[in-house]
Amino acid sequence: MNYKGDANLEKLLKAAGETRSLPEVKATLEGILAAPEDIAAPARWLTLFKTNTEAAQQLTALKAEMQDHQKTSSQDKLADLRAEMAKRGIDGFYIPRADEFHGEYVPERAERLAWATGFTGSAGSAVVLKEKGGFFTDGRYTLQARKQVDGSDFDICSTAADQQPTPTITPMEWIEKNLPKGAKFGIDPWIQTANEVKSIKAAVEKAGGTLVFVDSNPLDAAWKVRPAMPLSPVVAQPLQYAGKASDEKRKALADTLKAKGADALAISLPEETCWLLNVRGGDVPCTPFALSYAIAHKDNTVDWFIDQRKITDETRKWVGPDVRIHDIAEFQHSLAALAKKGKKVWVDPGSAPIKAQTIVTDNGGTVHAERSPLQLMKALKNDVEIAGMAACHIRDGAALTRFMAAIAEPGAAAKFDEISASDLLESYRAEGDKFRGLSFETISGAGGNGAIIHYRSTPETSQPILAGPVYLVDSGGQYLDGTTDVTRTLAVAKPTAEMKENFTRVLKGHIQVAMSEFHAGTTGDKLDVKARAALKEVGLDYAHGTGHGVGSYLSVHEGPAGITPTSNSVPLEPGMILSNEPGYYKEGAYGIRLESLVVVIDTGKKDTDGKNLLGFKTLTMAPIDTNMVEPSLLTADEMKWLNSYHAEVQKNLLPLLEKSDPKAVAFLKKATAPIQKAAPAPSARRIKLLFL
Amino acid sequence: MNYKGDANLEKLLKAAGETRSLPEVKATLEGILAAPEDIAAPARWLTLFKTNTEAAQQLTALKAEMQDHQKTSSQDKLADLRAEMAKRGIDGFYIPRADEFHGEYVPERAERLAWATGFTGSAGSAVVLKEKGGFFTDGRYTLQARKQVDGSDFDICSTAADQQPTPTITPMEWIEKNLPKGAKFGIDPWIQTANEVKSIKAAVEKAGGTLVFVDSNPLDAAWKVRPAMPLSPVVAQPLQYAGKASDEKRKALADTLKAKGADALAISLPEETCWLLNVRGGDVPCTPFALSYAIAHKDNTVDWFIDQRKITDETRKWVGPDVRIHDIAEFQHSLAALAKKGKKVWVDPGSAPIKAQTIVTDNGGTVHAERSPLQLMKALKNDVEIAGMAACHIRDGAALTRFMAAIAEPGAAAKFDEISASDLLESYRAEGDKFRGLSFETISGAGGNGAIIHYRSTPETSQPILAGPVYLVDSGGQYLDGTTDVTRTLAVAKPTAEMKENFTRVLKGHIQVAMSEFHAGTTGDKLDVKARAALKEVGLDYAHGTGHGVGSYLSVHEGPAGITPTSNSVPLEPGMILSNEPGYYKEGAYGIRLESLVVVIDTGKKDTDGKNLLGFKTLTMAPIDTNMVEPSLLTADEMKWLNSYHAEVQKNLLPLLEKSDPKAVAFLKKATAPIQKAAPAPSARRIKLLFL
Repeated sequence: MNYKGDANLEKLLKAAGETRSLPEVKATLEGILAAPEDIAAPARWLTLFKTNTEAAQQLTALKAEMQDHQKTSSQDKLADLRAEMAKRGIDGFYIPRADEFHGEYVPERAERLAWATGFTGSAGSAVVLKEKGGFFTDGRYTLQARKQVDGSDFDICSTAADQQPTPTITPMEWIEKNLPKGAKFGIDPWIQTANEVKSIKAAVEKAGGTLVFVDSNPLDAAWKVRPAMPLSPVVAQPLQYAGKASDEKRKALADTLKAKGADALAISLPEETCWLLNVRGGDVPCTPFALSYAIAHKDNTVDWFIDQRKITDETRKWVGPDVRIHDIAEFQHSLAALAKKGKKVWVDPGSAPIKAQTIVTDNGGTVHAERSPLQLMKALKNDVEIAGMAACHIRDGAALTRFMAAIAEPGAAAKFDEISASDLLESYRAEGDKFRGLSFETISGAGGNGAIIHYRSTPETSQPILAGPVYLVDSGGQYLDGTTDVTRTLAVAKPTAEMKENFTRVLKGHIQVAMSEFHAGTTGDKLDVKARAALKEVGLDYAHGTGHGVGSYLSVHEGPAGITPTSNSVPLEPGMILSNEPGYYKEGAYGIRLESLVVVIDTGKKDTDGKNLLGFKTLTMAPIDTNMVEPSLLTADEMKWLNSYHAEVQKNLLPLLEKSDPKAVAFLKKATAPIQKAAPAPSARRIKLLFL
Repeated sequence: MNYKGDANLEKLLKAAGETRSLPEVKATLEGILAAPEDIAAPARWLTLFKTNTEAAQQLTALKAEMQDHQKTSSQDKLADLRAEMAKRGIDGFYIPRADEFHGEYVPERAERLAWATGFTGSAGSAVVLKEKGGFFTDGRYTLQARKQVDGSDFDICSTAADQQPTPTITPMEWIEKNLPKGAKFGIDPWIQTANEVKSIKAAVEKAGGTLVFVDSNPLDAAWKVRPAMPLSPVVAQPLQYAGKASDEKRKALADTLKAKGADALAISLPEETCWLLNVRGGDVPCTPFALSYAIAHKDNTVDWFIDQRKITDETRKWVGPDVRIHDIAEFQHSLAALAKKGKKVWVDPGSAPIKAQTIVTDNGGTVHAERSPLQLMKALKNDVEIAGMAACHIRDGAALTRFMAAIAEPGAAAKFDEISASDLLESYRAEGDKFRGLSFETISGAGGNGAIIHYRSTPETSQPILAGPVYLVDSGGQYLDGTTDVTRTLAVAKPTAEMKENFTRVLKGHIQVAMSEFHAGTTGDKLDVKARAALKEVGLDYAHGTGHGVGSYLSVHEGPAGITPTSNSVPLEPGMILSNEPGYYKEGAYGIRLESLVVVIDTGKKDTDGKNLLGFKTLTMAPIDTNMVEPSLLTADEMKWLNSYHAEVQKNLLPLLEKSDPKAVAFLKKATAPIQKAAPAPSARRIKLLFL
């Protein structure tokens, strides 16, 4: 029953004998709404009015309307968003967690997914239709999504099959199932890539709908008080850290463009522009980006589109006259002008806004659609970058070791919760040279929180470090000379035999990757199986990849290579820096992950056919907690690797710790002491069987 | 450095060569504030402006001012509160978690402590001074307070010594230490009782300050959008449940007034008025109160002060002509009028606003300060009330047993988290007769959350029931014929030997209280020691009382008697209904509590001197999880008590379950089957010693 308005109700109430004025009636309804709902007698509040049937119905409708108005802002937001969708004539809208630069960290201004759904994880998307909504994230985040997203506004779906009772369904499948025939489904072409649009379009059309590119984002219109775009000074990344001059990089890029017959590259990823121009910024947390676009031409020059308030005279001089600086709004006009001249523009379909493509094609140009060549160029670190990475990993490892030493002091662990522990770790990092901030928000997971793969402690979830025997800390720093990302899993109390067994199986996978030797041309999926083998032997696994690329004082996650179960077309090449991070997670109980960064090297060895063998050198320098190790499960080679790694850690960290934290020296020595193969002991699993 | 204003900055910037207008400068600062703080180079943002020293200082001051303005609303609130305090000329203000009715549940409108501090627990207080603040709560809530209250706004203090690292200090000690000499310290006399004011006044004066009663609450003035006062219909509590007519109760009260030489009783506790007038309301959650004041006269009549929009004609007729109904604002005028006639008015110093006292004394009346006689009258349940309590406990126990059966089904526990589990339990209760809602918000604590004594699950904290082997659920219902409050601790997975031992020690305490026999005149503290004895044997204890009074379809916590370690002047008398709830809590790991309601009875037995022996009859009817029991730790008497309790539970619940939930019948039979004394087994503690 809809509320038919004040005049109607006033008449009805008067007819029923109610003598109060409508404002008095509404004030009374406000009080009724402030009282708890009477679940056993839900209509009893009507006894406070003189009514007849029709007046009672209208009063009920008015109360519902007033209650709607009071409802959580989340619901108001969705109503506002739907109103803006209606203005644009669309029946559905896709909300990715992305900004127009498509980086992992987005400024608050672009946290559209969080605004609309409450979800604060770093991966996910939502679809809003007229009557319902779908929310989607992967296995890492479904637990968090069930806590943060209102299930009455959104179907909460997992895109991976590992988290019951969340249904497993992709946004595309959901759209196919839920979008009404004939519906118009909108996307914002600045915040979706061509690859994304391809699959959205297919789903929309399967459902019998039409895909529409909106001219302006309806969510941005509904979001009344949006934060400002961040402004942080852009500074030079000098040669002592970058290792290669920008003009050399631009020349190499121009050669590639010419080889592919392209006139220009449209660069939308800020990390690619920053790498190419040897500059860094600070617009988003944890990654030294300057949010900006660029167009690189085959004549070695670059047009750079950026809020010029971020550019000092010094930076302008640093980039030189071959880098023309424009306001960011000019990007689309410059692109259109190139297209009008019939140029062929390289646009990465996987990272650039699809709008960049359509501007080119709509204006008579040609698009060369291929992964940006800068990805691989940036991934192949030069010697200066590799030396910087090695150097910062020693400072970073010293900080982590000081932290491990501090919480290992008798009674100390009891003083920390997840948040105060990660604060302590950050403070040690901050004392190191060239430190510029964290490379991502520290994952500090005690007990069951450790099992939430991309867990972020909040004051509500933070628990004492001692919540369980196993504490997982995944953290990293940004330094002028490099970027770190390291996970250690620590025994803060006596671990059970099961925990030790599973830790050791994770360690075996980690070591097998670290020790592997392979031919040029090998892709990461060939190594991923090695990381999981020891776990799979006993039916266990982990729901994430084993390795991702890492930038050099840039993004902590970068392409194009990786070590993942799915096949990857980019082979591992010397100079690539990747993580090696197998894990194991027992929901509600504990999490284990062991992560070091490795650099791909030429081992100098040959196989029996005389072919070169590549391998890894571990950059991360931090003890692996031997209290978690069940030595009987390690092979002799694995044991040897662990002991020699620890010897190297000790050698590298000792000089720094002797200066900065003499108390941590004894800890380091003990933590890196060689371990022995014990007499073969029954594994936890076998002990269990004895009792079953 | 303070910001000296726009004109000054404009001049300075111009002199330094900056060409942008001040609005442009401010827009740039907004962007700078939207970027992450550069912790390694905190002044680098200044490079985006042309400045000299003075201009840089003023820009920094302006940025700080803009940042302050953006800061969390909590800090804005405190600033607003302090501004209102300044208007009233006070340097400090006390914020209790209380409304002008001083009940346990307060309407949202009175959640002043939550508004000012973010703390949502049900016990706590805060003190706000000009420059700093103190927040205080007891051992049950310090963990929650550390999570919810901003430590930079408030010193977070515990009033009990059990939760390190929270400092143990009472609000009074904090005031003594922190209030500057000569300061004026304000309280709102409507929301503080005389007893509270006595200790605040002593502390303020020790610090060399002066206590001031404010005419209007500065916090209410700062709280711009306060929720409305709740309005819920007041209904009759008929004789079939109340057991005694209101005029009989009023006559008994009048007799007491006359015996003490008082002319009238000022009643501020809504539960006392509701009991006296045989009415119930629904203004706050979980307690069927009607927020109101009353004055009972020695001529058996009552003046009732209440928002008359809550009173229907039917209720007006029910209370009769001897109950005169007035608007609530008249309370103070009626009290003043009585005082002006020189009357002696009884005011409870422990529960009434001190304002009620001062109105009487300021207008020439006399105050009789003593605990309200209605407390004891209400606590001594009549036979109809006791029969109602027994009846509702059978329906309530059937609901709880259905819940226990549902989560005991193979694989079922894995489907629930704390919130969905309490929802299921509520739905079973709601299917029972005469159900009117929960008697308090269910405490549903899995794993480590069970150790938070007054834990409330939130979407952020809720974890799977299987977070640990032990799941604690403390819940209760309001029924037309009574109020329930029951805690059971369930093994949802295999408990460790330690958990079983500690559960059994809690059970021993519970049984010792249930079996105790005592003389008339015995106070609860004599029984409290019995509840803790088995735990104390091994150095354990719990940080809460053992028993509180429970109302009859009224508040789940009531006085005047209790079973607590501190001495209580009110002896246990037949007809009192109390909880029996020992527990044990291991922070971060698990919580155990076992709670049933008991009614004090005359056992009919005599001691050797021929003196009457009182005892308890357990009202709660729900299985105690024998999977948690270590039989070897029980004495033969305890074992007998447990088996005969279970036999009674089975007999009482079987007929209801056979009708409502045949699937739960098998569970009930198994759960209430007698257990045997096993061969003496070594306790967990002894096993541990063998290995040390």
